[in-house]
Amino acid sequence: MNYSPKFPVKWVKFMVMILSIASTGIAAGWTDIPRLSPTRGIIMEDPDLLSSAAVSDDLQTCYYPQTLDHFNYQPQSYGTFQQRYVMNFKYWGGANNSAPILAYLGAESPLNVSLTAIGFLNDSAVSFNALLVYIEHRYYGKSIPFGSREEAFKNASTLGYFNSAQAIADYAEIIMHIKNEHRAFYSPVIVVGGSYGGMLASWLRLKYPHVALGALASSAPILYFDNITPSGAYYSVVTKDFREASESCYQTIRNSWSVIDKIASQPNGLSTLSMIFNTCKPLTKSSELKIALKNMYALAAQYNSPPRYPVTVICRGIDGANETQDILSKIFAGVVAYGNLSCYINQQTNESETTEGWRWQRCSEMVIPKGIGNGTMFQPAPFNLTSFIQHCKTIFGVLPRPHWVTSYYGGHDIKLILQRFGSNIIFSNGLRDPYSGGGVLENISESILAVKTVNGSHCLDIHAQTASDPEWLVKQRQTEVKIIRGWIAQYYADLKDILFKQ
Amino acid sequence: MNYSPKFPVKWVKFMVMILSIASTGIAAGWTDIPRLSPTRGIIMEDPDLLSSAAVSDDLQTCYYPQTLDHFNYQPQSYGTFQQRYVMNFKYWGGANNSAPILAYLGAESPLNVSLTAIGFLNDSAVSFNALLVYIEHRYYGKSIPFGSREEAFKNASTLGYFNSAQAIADYAEIIMHIKNEHRAFYSPVIVVGGSYGGMLASWLRLKYPHVALGALASSAPILYFDNITPSGAYYSVVTKDFREASESCYQTIRNSWSVIDKIASQPNGLSTLSMIFNTCKPLTKSSELKIALKNMYALAAQYNSPPRYPVTVICRGIDGANETQDILSKIFAGVVAYGNLSCYINQQTNESETTEGWRWQRCSEMVIPKGIGNGTMFQPAPFNLTSFIQHCKTIFGVLPRPHWVTSYYGGHDIKLILQRFGSNIIFSNGLRDPYSGGGVLENISESILAVKTVNGSHCLDIHAQTASDPEWLVKQRQTEVKIIRGWIAQYYADLKDILFKQ
Repeated sequence: MNYSPKFPVKWVKFMVMILSIASTGIAAGWTDIPRLSPTRGIIMEDPDLLSSAAVSDDLQTCYYPQTLDHFNYQPQSYGTFQQRYVMNFKYWGGANNSAPILAYLGAESPLNVSLTAIGFLNDSAVSFNALLVYIEHRYYGKSIPFGSREEAFKNASTLGYFNSAQAIADYAEIIMHIKNEHRAFYSPVIVVGGSYGGMLASWLRLKYPHVALGALASSAPILYFDNITPSGAYYSVVTKDFREASESCYQTIRNSWSVIDKIASQPNGLSTLSMIFNTCKPLTKSSELKIALKNMYALAAQYNSPPRYPVTVICRGIDGANETQDILSKIFAGVVAYGNLSCYINQQTNESETTEGWRWQRCSEMVIPKGIGNGTMFQPAPFNLTSFIQHCKTIFGVLPRPHWVTSYYGGHDIKLILQRFGSNIIFSNGLRDPYSGGGVLENISESILAVKTVNGSHCLDIHAQTASDPEWLVKQRQTEVKIIRGWIAQYYADLKDILFKQ
Repeated sequence: MNYSPKFPVKWVKFMVMILSIASTGIAAGWTDIPRLSPTRGIIMEDPDLLSSAAVSDDLQTCYYPQTLDHFNYQPQSYGTFQQRYVMNFKYWGGANNSAPILAYLGAESPLNVSLTAIGFLNDSAVSFNALLVYIEHRYYGKSIPFGSREEAFKNASTLGYFNSAQAIADYAEIIMHIKNEHRAFYSPVIVVGGSYGGMLASWLRLKYPHVALGALASSAPILYFDNITPSGAYYSVVTKDFREASESCYQTIRNSWSVIDKIASQPNGLSTLSMIFNTCKPLTKSSELKIALKNMYALAAQYNSPPRYPVTVICRGIDGANETQDILSKIFAGVVAYGNLSCYINQQTNESETTEGWRWQRCSEMVIPKGIGNGTMFQPAPFNLTSFIQHCKTIFGVLPRPHWVTSYYGGHDIKLILQRFGSNIIFSNGLRDPYSGGGVLENISESILAVKTVNGSHCLDIHAQTASDPEWLVKQRQTEVKIIRGWIAQYYADLKDILFKQ
C-alpha cells in the first residue's frame, strides 16, 4: 500500500467522501458523481490549507456589493449581496505600467482552498508582474445572497439567481471595479478557471472581451451538453484509464458487477456483500455498493495525478491480491489499497456546500448528460433525460433547461463558429481526465488553442507546481505561459499603436 | 412649400407628433426626444402600411412561446408569452442548399411597419435566395407578456423583464427555433437592425456568434453610453446639418431663443408667443415652445432623407420669409414650411407604444446621455445624470443602471477590444444623422467595418429602395450587400472544408 506521504489525513477524508457518496445518489442521472471540480472532493473544505503561511501574508480579502440580478429590473433585482474576492499585489507591476491581472474564477466551492490549490497564478505571478485576483462564485463560501445560506437555498425563488450567466456578470463587474479602483484601465486581464470554472473562464472571454483579454480554461467540458458529446464519453475514458493501467485489473472490475448482482440476489446476499466490503452500515441494496465502487473508479481516473496515480494504486491492489482469491476479494483489495479505513461505504457524512450547490446548478442549466454506454468496464446505464428532469422537478419544483447552455454559449460546430470569431482562449486538457471527452481537444484558430497532455488528469495544469512534477506537466504549463505572454505582448503593441494615433 | 407627394397624410400626422411632444418632456434629460427609430415617428403605427399588397401575400405570421426570463430560474421566470414573428419563404433557396436567412430584429415599436419600411430584406432577398424573418421586440406590438399591455406596463415588477439582454436572447431562441423547425441547420443567418435595433443586431452577433453569422447594424449609436461619446454630439450634428443647409437659416435659429425668452419674460409674453406660433392651446411656459422647435429641428436632421430633405424644407421656409419680418415670424415660416396645419404645438395626442416603452428602456438601461453643449444653434442644456436618475426613480420606483450597457456589451476602446475579437459586423451610418456621433465610424478590423455616407440620414440604407434614391445611397447598399455576400461565401467554404474533413 503506497500512501502519499504528503496527504495522509486529507486522503482518508477523501476516501470517506467517495465511499459515502453512494448513499445520496440513487435516481437515474444522480449517480454520476463525481461532479466537476479543479481539486479532489473533501480537500476543498479543508481548513488546514488556508492557514498555509506561504500565501496568507500577501492576501487581501475584499467584498463587493454585487447586484442580485443583472438581467432584470424588478425592484428585488437591485438587492445586493457581499461577494468575496481576494487580491495579492505582491508581484504587480502597477497601473502605470499597465501590468497584467490574473483573475481566478471560483467554481462550485468556497474560495478558500483555491488560494493555495490553484497555484498557477502564484507560480506565474513573478514572470508576469501580475496582480492576482481570486473571485468567489455566488452562492458558495461567503458570497451568499439573502443573508444566510439557509435562506439562499430555501427554494427556487431564492435559488433562481444562482446560474452561470449571473456568475459571469459578477466576475466582469468585480474585475471592472478593481481596474477602476486601481486606475488600471489598460491592464490586460487573463481569466483562469478549472472544470466548471474553466467553462466560465472561456465564456467570460467570449461574452466580455472588453473585460478579459484572454482565458485559460483548464479541463472545461464545454462540449458536454445537448448531445454534442456522446453521453458515454466520461465512463469510456475511465475505462480506458484502467485498461491502460492494467488489462487484468480492467477485466476483474468488468467481471465484478455480475458477481455482485448474483450474490445480492441470493438469500442473505446483502449481508454477505456487507461483510466482504466491511461496510460501515449493512447494505440495504446492492446499488449502494455498486455506485460507491463506480465513483471510486471515476474519481481515481479524474484525479489520476502524479506522483501517486490513484488508478495505478487501485489496480495494484486488485492485481496484487492472491490469485486464488475470489473476484470480490480482489475488488476489495483495490478499495483498501486506495485508502485503508476502519470501514467502507455507507459512512455518515455531512453534505458539502459543493454537493448542495452543484445539485441546483445541474438541475437548472448544467445538464451534463453523463451516462454509461456499452463497451466499458461498467454495467450500461444510459442517461435518461426524462427521469432526470422529473427528479429535478421533484426536488426544486422547477424544470431544468437542458438546452440553455448551448443556446447562450454555443458549442455545436464549435470550429465552424469560432474559427473566425473570438480569440485568446486556451482549452487545456489531460487526456486521462474523463471530462476531457467533453473538452475542446483541437485548435480552433490561431489563438483559440487546445493544449493537451496524454497523461494529464483533471485541472492538473493550474495546480501548484511541485518538485516531483513530470516533464510533460512542466512543459504543458510552460506552453500555456508562453501563449499568454504572446497575447499580452500583442495587446501592448496594439495599445501603443492606438495611443500613439490619438 | 414642397410636400412629398407620396406621404401627405402621414406627413401631417408626423407633424402632429413632433409639435406635441413638448407637452410630455419637461424635466432635464427628458426633452431629448427624438428617440431612436429606423423610421419617422407616427408612421410606425400607420395601419395603412400593413395592407400594402406588395408584401402581405407572402408573409406568414407566427408566434413563439417565449421564456419570460432567460437568466433566472425562479418559478415565475418560466412564464411564457407569445412573441410574434413573420416569415417570407418566397425567395428562399431552402434548407438543402443551406440558403441564407435574413432576420430583421424589431426595435422599440410594433413590428407591422417594419415589414414594408425595412425594405433592405425584401430588396436583397432574391440575390441572396434568402428566407426573410422579422421578429418583434418583447413588450411591443403583439409580443406582450402578462396577457395585456396594461398588466405588462403596470409597474417595475412586470416591466423588469423588459430589457435588451432578454430581447437578444429572445431573438436567438426564435432564430434557433426556425432553423430547427425547417432543418436549416447550416443556413447562415444575417441579422439586420436599425438604430436601437441596430445595436441589438451588433450585440447579437457579438454575444451569439453561433446564431448569427453576421450583422448589419444601421445607425446604431452603440458608443453613445457612459461618456464614450461626448453628450453634446447629437445636437452638434443637428447644428452642422442646418449650417450646411443655410448659414442664414442657422443664424436665425441660433438668434431666436433669446428673442423667445425676452418676449416670454414680458407681460402677456406667452400670449404673444402663442399668437405668433398659432398654438393649439395657449402656452403655459416658453419651454413648451422651445422644446417643440428643438425637436422639430432634431427630427428634421435625423430623418433628413432624400428626396425631400426636411432640413432644407425648414430652412427654405425660414430664409424665404420676407426680409422685413421679425425673427420669430421667420421661424414660424419654417414651422409652416415643414408641415402646414390648422394649429401648432400643444396638440392633444395619445402616447404611442414606442414613447411608453422607450421611456422604460431609457430609465432602466438605455441611458443615452444626450445634452446640448456650447457652440450649437441651441441654448446649452447639459445632460444631468443625477436629475435623470431621480426622474426615473419617481416614475418607475427603480433606478437606471447607466453603466450596465458598457459593462455587458463593452464600447470603451472599441478598436483596441475588437480589432482581434469578433467578426462580420457592418456599422452603417449617414453622417447627417445626429446619432452618427455615437456610432462606429471607422473600420475596426477586416470584417468589422464602418460603411458611411456623407449625406445619409438615420437608417436610410435599410429602408426600401426607390427610383429616386441618389447614387451614393444606391452605392452604400451595394457595398453592404457585397460585404455580406463575402461573409456568406467564406462561411460556405469553411462549411465545405469542415464537412469534407468529417
